[in-house]
Order: sequence, then C-alpha cells, then structure tokens
Amino acid sequence: MKFYDVSMPIHESMPVYNDNSDKKPHITIERDFVDGQGVRETRLSINLHTGTHVDAPLHMIYKAATTTEFKPEDFIFRARVIDLSFVEDSITAETLKNIDIQTGDFLLFKTRNSLTDGFEKNFVFIEKSAAEYLASKKVKGIGIDSLGIERSQIGHPSHVTLLQSDCLILEGLRLKGVPSGDYVLLAAPIKIRDVEAAPVRAILVEPSWLADFLKGEFER
Amino acid sequence: MKFYDVSMPIHESMPVYNDNSDKKPHITIERDFVDGQGVRETRLSINLHTGTHVDAPLHMIYKAATTTEFKPEDFIFRARVIDLSFVEDSITAETLKNIDIQTGDFLLFKTRNSLTDGFEKNFVFIEKSAAEYLASKKVKGIGIDSLGIERSQIGHPSHVTLLQSDCLILEGLRLKGVPSGDYVLLAAPIKIRDVEAAPVRAILVEPSWLADFLKGEFER
Repeated sequence: MKFYDVSMPIHESMPVYNDNSDKKPHITIERDFVDGQGVRETRLSINLHTGTHVDAPLHMIYKAATTTEFKPEDFIFRARVIDLSFVEDSITAETLKNIDIQTGDFLLFKTRNSLTDGFEKNFVFIEKSAAEYLASKKVKGIGIDSLGIERSQIGHPSHVTLLQSDCLILEGLRLKGVPSGDYVLLAAPIKIRDVEAAPVRAILVEPSWLADFLKGEFER
Repeated sequence: MKFYDVSMPIHESMPVYNDNSDKKPHITIERDFVDGQGVRETRLSINLHTGTHVDAPLHMIYKAATTTEFKPEDFIFRARVIDLSFVEDSITAETLKNIDIQTGDFLLFKTRNSLTDGFEKNFVFIEKSAAEYLASKKVKGIGIDSLGIERSQIGHPSHVTLLQSDCLILEGLRLKGVPSGDYVLLAAPIKIRDVEAAPVRAILVEPSWLADFLKGEFER
C-alpha cells in the first residue's frame, strides 16, 4: 500500500458527535432530478464538524482566526502515525513522554477509536496535560481518530490550548490498518469563508511513492 | 509562487450556476453557539455543484458510477494549465487541434471566465466537438474555470461524452494569475458516499517545490 485514505465516509447513518444529542440532524442528503434530461443533483446539509475535518481557532476562542486564514502551504505535511492503541481512557502528558516529539511535528494518534464504527461515548481523547505538553513542544498539528479531540473537560482546555498555540487540529480520522511511521499528509479542507471548521479529505502517501511520481511525470 | 489555490471560496453571496434560477438557494450557512461555553459550530447546506467540485458519471448518466468509486490514487495528477483566454464563446475541437494532447493528460483550461467574479450567463464552455476530441485522445481529466463545463447544449453531450470515457471533470476552478505550464494538481474531493459530485479544494503545486519538500522532510 502506498496510499491510505484516512477519511470517514459521509452518509446519513454515519456516526456523529454525541449521537446527535442536540436533536439537530448533523447530515441530510437530498437527491434531486433537476430537469427532464435526467440530470442528478444532490443537496448536502452538514454540521461542519461532521466526519473528517479541521478545526480553526474560532471554534473555541472568541473572535479568533477562521478557516479563511488557512494557507495552501499548510495542506501538505510530513506527518507521523503513532500507535497508541494501548491507551484505555485518554492520552496524557505521561503517555507522550517516551515519544521523540520535535518542534514542527504533525502527529496522528492511532487509538482504539479506529476500531469502532459507531460513535463511542467513551472515546479515547487528548487530556489537558497532553495538550499542554504538545503545545510546549510547538507541534504544527495533531490528528486523532475520534470526532473530537476531547470530552468530559469543562471549558474544552485541550482545544483551547492547542488552538492558542497555532496547532492544527484534524478530527475524525480513520487509521485502522495504517502502519506507524512517517507519511506525506495531504489535507486541504474545502474553502468555506469565515467559519470555524471545514471538512477535508485526508490522505496519507508514502514519500517514496510521491518521489517516484515526480520522477515519472516530470523528468521525462 | 510555488502554490496556487485554484478553488472558489464558498460563502452566501458567491456566484452559483444559473444565478439560482431554480429558486432553491444553493448555499445557506447557519452560525450557531452550541453551548454556554462559547463553542461555535456552523451548519452548511449546499448543492454539491457549488464552487469548485468534481462530477461523477452519475451526474449525467443513469445508474453510472458515483463518488464512492473515486480512488485516492486519482487525487494527485500531473496537470497542465492551458491559456485559452482568446476564446470568445466556446472551446471546440478546432481550438484544441494545435495543442499537443497525449493519452492520460489532465488539462486545465484557463479562459476569460477566470476574470469574472459573478455568474456570467455566456461563460466560455466546452463544446461537444471538443469533448469528443478530448475523449478520443483519452485524457484522464479536464478542468475549467466555470461552474459548468457546458451550456446551451440539449442532452448535455459534453458531460456525457467525457464521463462515458472515464474523464474526470473538475468545475469551478479559479485560474487568474496562474501561468501556463505543468503542475502537480492536488484535488481530493470530500468523501461523500454514493452521490454524483463532491466539493474539492484544488491546489496546484510546482513540482520543484514538492521535490524540495520531500528532500527536506524525509532525507535528513
């Protein structure tokens, strides 16, 4: 395998955060015929935190940066998949202490969440101490295989800490079957102006594939 | 410049196909506070042909392939930007005859459409003869800087011809200021299951940038 599509498929019965406990449907899909010529057009209505998506600081911080601030240079990263499938409840600073984390790293945490298909109330999350540790290391981004990076923490300190330190947050990854290691992460969120999150198709590519692609396509 | 974001921003007053003549709003954006802790969440409702998007065969062909069939290997291409800003009405087979087009090419047509910000009724389109010519050349994909590849053709023959020949169709590009030439096109549409189109953040990257990125990030 050279490519891993680590995105969650969007459809009406997909898992959504808190199982829609706010009573608003997260997703509706209306399929339409638009004219007598058999053209199909669909209308999609989603909460922007549906499926795989990127959070902007505005999500948790008043008047902070929106998706408009995302730069295309920030859609391609070296990212490392880290196997944390042994974690039972939450990722803490302690969990991360033995991992070599450098300034500018983009870390993707593969947990037992990737084995669950529905929404699991007790999903593995990034506990406040881990967020503070990651912020102190000045990581560029983190990704996790749950629909949120945190639960059960009043005031959402993990979000606030990471967003305040300009750390990109990628939620809703699917990492089952993806080996630990370094990849090229392609994650260009759709270009919605001035909102607090945007859906993204996240792809991991082995760097050797991309090097071969460049050689094959451009050095002829 | 090493990066070009060739995507159209999505917002409530953006141009939409036919100026919403079907009287259904293409886009609504509802901004919400979800709880007392100042969390912002937005709900987006769009026609899937809003802004920059990829069409799947189902759009115009009964029971044909949907977005579910898209493969991640098809999200990274060598693509060529071709300046057709001299074209006044439509791109025909004649327009393309002097261009060296090879099997497997992905061609992005830059026309006077990229200079318009609103929806222009008489946008430059891909006329049936050009679609047939491109299909005969077995191109892998085409992109254009209008919200549709065609207008004023009963039965949508340009769509049907290209979709039947497995040519990817990328609509709603913004190519103003992008020089002609070869680029790496990153175009991974969001993963919506079983529909006829999907929004995409399309990015053009100069191959030398990507080669340097791989060297700098992975060969240390």
